[in-house]
Amino acid sequence: MLTRIDHVGIACRDLEAKIAFYESAFGLSVASIEVNESQGVREAMLHVADSASGGSYVQLLQPLGPDTPVGRFLERRGEGVHHVGYGVSDITAALAEIGGRGVRLIDSRPRHGSMGASIAFLHPADVGGVLTELVQAAPRP
Amino acid sequence: MLTRIDHVGIACRDLEAKIAFYESAFGLSVASIEVNESQGVREAMLHVADSASGGSYVQLLQPLGPDTPVGRFLERRGEGVHHVGYGVSDITAALAEIGGRGVRLIDSRPRHGSMGASIAFLHPADVGGVLTELVQAAPRP
Repeated sequence: MLTRIDHVGIACRDLEAKIAFYESAFGLSVASIEVNESQGVREAMLHVADSASGGSYVQLLQPLGPDTPVGRFLERRGEGVHHVGYGVSDITAALAEIGGRGVRLIDSRPRHGSMGASIAFLHPADVGGVLTELVQAAPRP
Repeated sequence: MLTRIDHVGIACRDLEAKIAFYESAFGLSVASIEVNESQGVREAMLHVADSASGGSYVQLLQPLGPDTPVGRFLERRGEGVHHVGYGVSDITAALAEIGGRGVRLIDSRPRHGSMGASIAFLHPADVGGVLTELVQAAPRP
């Protein structure tokens, strides 16, 4: 069902500084920078690799304010890994299958993610403390 | 320099239960189970995908005791993402390059990781709160 590790989502306080760090230390390059109002973040996707099913990225997340999910995460735990996103080929089918196995879905229907993807989050309490995201990448042009 | 997201390392209290969960909920399968005495863990690699440069895995980590790095992590933060491992083609060259940019190396020389890989950890305080591992996969047979 999972086709790749799509991204690791990392919470940070200063998006530009962290982008500069990942570019300089690891040679990554920015594939997109977007504001996602509904999730309360400004986020950058840094390209790591491509595979047959889609890309793999480091996703850097800066909250738009303290009273957002990532803002509260930073307050509680500090900078670090916020979630893990896995690629799927059919997110609606994957949600039905995973939900049918008793995992609670934060998003029972897909919503908009980075770079035109359809995404949905699973409840971390049902995935061993890991906030887990499913990602169906946008069709390639 | 980074060729793929090699794995996400996830700390857990009950390795067999967590393996069963990832198999059942996400359809992953176990590629290896090993004890790494020097790191104080029993660990399972669950295969997610392959790419030209190597595989991508969910790595589940159960500490061998409370007084180990993963045991202390569980005590402090509970179950969840412990570290992120990125593939590199030449770990010695990568360590020299990254260290030369001012990132402190936990391991200045590679040591043994899962499935015959050579690995080294970077200091999380220098990588935005993320314990970061470099992985040079073992040559394929």
